Amino acid sequence: MIIDRLIGKIIETENPSVIGLDTCVDYLPEDMQAKCNTLEDAGKYIFEFNKNLIDALKDIIPAVKVQVAYYEMYGVEGMKAFRDTLSYAGENGIVTIADVKRNDIGSTAGAYSKAYLSGVTLGGKKITPFESDFITVNGYLGSDGVLPFVNDCKENEKGIFALVKTSNPTSGELQDKRFESGKTLYEEMGTLVTKWGEELVGKYGYSSVGAVVGATHKEQAEVIRKAFPSTFFLIPGYGAQGGKAEDLKVCFDNGLGGIVNSSRGILTAYKKAYKGLSYVDGAVKAAEDMRRDLIGAVGVYKK
Amino acid sequence: MIIDRLIGKIIETENPSVIGLDTCVDYLPEDMQAKCNTLEDAGKYIFEFNKNLIDALKDIIPAVKVQVAYYEMYGVEGMKAFRDTLSYAGENGIVTIADVKRNDIGSTAGAYSKAYLSGVTLGGKKITPFESDFITVNGYLGSDGVLPFVNDCKENEKGIFALVKTSNPTSGELQDKRFESGKTLYEEMGTLVTKWGEELVGKYGYSSVGAVVGATHKEQAEVIRKAFPSTFFLIPGYGAQGGKAEDLKVCFDNGLGGIVNSSRGILTAYKKAYKGLSYVDGAVKAAEDMRRDLIGAVGVYKK
Repeated sequence: MIIDRLIGKIIETENPSVIGLDTCVDYLPEDMQAKCNTLEDAGKYIFEFNKNLIDALKDIIPAVKVQVAYYEMYGVEGMKAFRDTLSYAGENGIVTIADVKRNDIGSTAGAYSKAYLSGVTLGGKKITPFESDFITVNGYLGSDGVLPFVNDCKENEKGIFALVKTSNPTSGELQDKRFESGKTLYEEMGTLVTKWGEELVGKYGYSSVGAVVGATHKEQAEVIRKAFPSTFFLIPGYGAQGGKAEDLKVCFDNGLGGIVNSSRGILTAYKKAYKGLSYVDGAVKAAEDMRRDLIGAVGVYKK
Repeated sequence: MIIDRLIGKIIETENPSVIGLDTCVDYLPEDMQAKCNTLEDAGKYIFEFNKNLIDALKDIIPAVKVQVAYYEMYGVEGMKAFRDTLSYAGENGIVTIADVKRNDIGSTAGAYSKAYLSGVTLGGKKITPFESDFITVNGYLGSDGVLPFVNDCKENEKGIFALVKTSNPTSGELQDKRFESGKTLYEEMGTLVTKWGEELVGKYGYSSVGAVVGATHKEQAEVIRKAFPSTFFLIPGYGAQGGKAEDLKVCFDNGLGGIVNSSRGILTAYKKAYKGLSYVDGAVKAAEDMRRDLIGAVGVYKK
């Protein structure tokens, strides 16, 4: 099961973190930026940047998260860089999370799922154009918009993370509102996520159907952790968005329970914390700092 | 304002319908299907199919809705067909709705918005890679995930439709649940949508920030119509999903108030209702039937 592969990598690297490749032209070094005059250039240099980071980070991180918005923004040429980044990370043994937050009615969700998890058949051959180990999904439409993804997870050893409590400042506007049942929207979503993932619980006790739970909302993370012990968390919001390692303790047990994302903090370390270093060296330093910071707070897995 | 352009086209064509170009290889005629052996072939023939439909339908329909999932499924090559379909429809004076249901935290929503509504600047030139008049968005993350789109609507004469009450069978699982406030989730979402669109109300009294309200849930549509009179509806679920014109009366007033989508019913008319006709002639017949059916129920605009 893919969740076991992800957790296995976390244990092996002693690192519960994922690097977010939210790469846009502004994050590139100035000499690369200067060469980005067309969408094609942008796609080319973004992929080159990602490739160099993957080469340098592949032995110290378990996973990368690739945020599709930053590739869609550069059109078809950006989507090429997105596809090639996912492939290159996969070929290098890194678990890939395509952060796409896709959602739609069942038949259309099935089409999205083909793009990332299961593939289309053409000329007698199955092709998965943006093959990913995990994708993120948004469950606002309810079960029939998510089950096509879940079914493809079962058949293709894949996983999803569904939005439960997001890291942005206004996530509470709807997600924290309490229903007549006494439960909040994020709790009701968490209940659905657990149900969707029931048949996909692996050997560490976590399901390949996980939840996105922001590092910036400690109180809610604690509620979700207690209510849904088999749900693995994808945790955005650490670093640039203000989430602290200490606040994440509530999400973990014996060093497991979630994977914490940092994007800007790693990609642009060479412009900030590690000014003077190359972008690759800056990213490695920042990734090592993040690893130490996280395991200092949440510990590492002991058999 | 883009909502006025859309409503102007609806009045001009006396047709409150939008054709959904959810084109996948299975919908193509057999001779075209047989030529689809690679992703590149699929993209090529899907665009050819769409182009022929746009040529035939451009004077009788106000808008097309292009569902990106069916293009993502064919990878980068599918995204080319998506881009070219949007461009071709736009060049032919048809209002374009990119049905992408995008959603993320503010900074990332801003990147999505650049892809569809506002563009990136490279080499001193602004390029909007998948330029659309409207896109659909999912507001589960709350205001700060939607406002980047709304701001770009203001600056670029664009519009959005946010999911309020979706057409799928299980949409009620979360959307119909009632909060302690007495309001359902779809009503709270509707309240936000109205707020986001306050400054974008055009001359017909409707805002460029509209709502997706399924044709399959009449009772909820009626509640939403009454509560949010300035919200224009994008109405999926007619035809193949079971929604009836008669049930849509509640959404309209003086022939205005929403635009009703049909995808499969039009694209595959030549395989079903109009077996024997070419796909183009079948689609035209089905689009004319739909127009008559809709205006028979909801009427046409009278000054």
